[in-house]
Amino acid sequence: MVVSIKKATDQEKLAAFQNYDAWVFDLDGTIWKGSGLVPGAKEFIELLRSYQKKVFFVTNNATKSRVTNATKLTGLGIAATTAEVYTSSFAAAAYLKTTGFRKKAYVVGEKGLVDELSAAGITCVGGPEHVGKEVDWTEPEPQVEIDPEIGAVVVGLDRYINYYKLQYATTCLVNNSSCMFIACNTDSRGHFSSSQEWAGAGTMVAAIIGSSEREPMLLGKPASFILDHLCATHQISRDKCVVVGDRLDTDILWGNQNGVATCCVLTGVTSEAQLLSPENKVQPKLYVDSLGDFLTVKPLLPTSCTIM
Amino acid sequence: MVVSIKKATDQEKLAAFQNYDAWVFDLDGTIWKGSGLVPGAKEFIELLRSYQKKVFFVTNNATKSRVTNATKLTGLGIAATTAEVYTSSFAAAAYLKTTGFRKKAYVVGEKGLVDELSAAGITCVGGPEHVGKEVDWTEPEPQVEIDPEIGAVVVGLDRYINYYKLQYATTCLVNNSSCMFIACNTDSRGHFSSSQEWAGAGTMVAAIIGSSEREPMLLGKPASFILDHLCATHQISRDKCVVVGDRLDTDILWGNQNGVATCCVLTGVTSEAQLLSPENKVQPKLYVDSLGDFLTVKPLLPTSCTIM
Repeated sequence: MVVSIKKATDQEKLAAFQNYDAWVFDLDGTIWKGSGLVPGAKEFIELLRSYQKKVFFVTNNATKSRVTNATKLTGLGIAATTAEVYTSSFAAAAYLKTTGFRKKAYVVGEKGLVDELSAAGITCVGGPEHVGKEVDWTEPEPQVEIDPEIGAVVVGLDRYINYYKLQYATTCLVNNSSCMFIACNTDSRGHFSSSQEWAGAGTMVAAIIGSSEREPMLLGKPASFILDHLCATHQISRDKCVVVGDRLDTDILWGNQNGVATCCVLTGVTSEAQLLSPENKVQPKLYVDSLGDFLTVKPLLPTSCTIM
Repeated sequence: MVVSIKKATDQEKLAAFQNYDAWVFDLDGTIWKGSGLVPGAKEFIELLRSYQKKVFFVTNNATKSRVTNATKLTGLGIAATTAEVYTSSFAAAAYLKTTGFRKKAYVVGEKGLVDELSAAGITCVGGPEHVGKEVDWTEPEPQVEIDPEIGAVVVGLDRYINYYKLQYATTCLVNNSSCMFIACNTDSRGHFSSSQEWAGAGTMVAAIIGSSEREPMLLGKPASFILDHLCATHQISRDKCVVVGDRLDTDILWGNQNGVATCCVLTGVTSEAQLLSPENKVQPKLYVDSLGDFLTVKPLLPTSCTIM
């Protein structure tokens, strides 16, 4: 049975603030929209920090590295360290490291994905270096030559996708059953501009599932890997952790499936009508219009104990 | 229960020859391999024609038009008319015509698909004219402008796939629920050269399912449309018709699912071991090593009645 929920009251927001020591925020649609911050987001993060709360930023977007995201946050006024930022590209790199991976990765994705894999010591083939590559169909026996050292195909959003890359990835997976198949995320669409939704990483992942007839290991939300890694690395107890995001099928599902409280914000892709619809089976623990709504708890809190 | 089958005896081949009036052949791996004919294919087609059998050629390959395929057959020594050739691109055009379609089609595919749709009077957008198109990501609000007249997205193999085309197709389908979504075929891989398998139309179809979260209408094998059209147009009774092909998941499944006898040849992608494996659930009515095997029926036949 689906229990209907109501917008969080001041008392519920206060209880959340006091109960959760680790706040895990989605970025796009939650902290920022395009190039601008969501009103109140900066002030709420500052409030959390002033009470020694741990703050993390987790995005499925694999086109930008942790460093790039931390720099963008800091530039917008929310000081953030690289260690506080998780991307699905970082997750791919971290996962490969946990398996003791020593071969090369074939990348269907952009620079941010190659940057994260390279930072983890993984040699990459493909990615930006295969932009504009074409099969020579005038050859009597056309062929895409594969590096025999490839041990994983790693797929994220690639706005420079082409047939050469798809064929390269397919051949790696079909000809070598021990080649790993890693999906950074399977988001159908994303928001690179406000005028329209854009085909997301799920497009490239589905294409290669279609051609290779293999199933990938998913590392971004809603898979457990990033929460497992984050809780282990930062010694966070799941009952003291809350995920805050705008997407039901990634952010909220992610927390719900992994034993972590969830809070939905309505500043991104989910409307209040969609959230409260009887057809919606993914319910957050609480919801607010916007991160700025949490600022109403400020006068209710005991004096903050900022470390000087 | 799966009944195990044995290679067709001369008597079984003779019975098939005498029983079936319409022979529906797959092309690649059945009639030809790459640029050369399968040995005996030409002579067997001639034998069928000399006994007034109807002969058809059906391919899922949507990159070449009916005319191009008929020309290639004739060039290889098998005289064939356009009416005897069915491609999944022709099926897409014929299907749209049956629906009274009067809008424009957005094509993710190659020239052969545009040629077939155009021959049916359908105005096409995309296809070869969108090869090399890029989204201008330097714009403050990047956007792919959609022709509001698009009423169907038609997807076949596209070896010049790019993000622009994927985004165009996705936007048509997501923003307009009455826009039709047509898949010429969903073959995972095909054989454009003998050195490796190549990502097939299933790659592009899966990509757009992944981005649009919509399901296409499938028109190529193993969907019923081409058999329905062929039998109706040429007044063929299904119990007098046999499908001959090398692929279990398209050719043989196609016949089995649509009330038509099936014959598997081992000159293409299916080995005898795969065919006879207990794991194979798609069993043809009979199988032969090669089309040339049917020539053993020649001495057993009554005198042919070639029309001079």
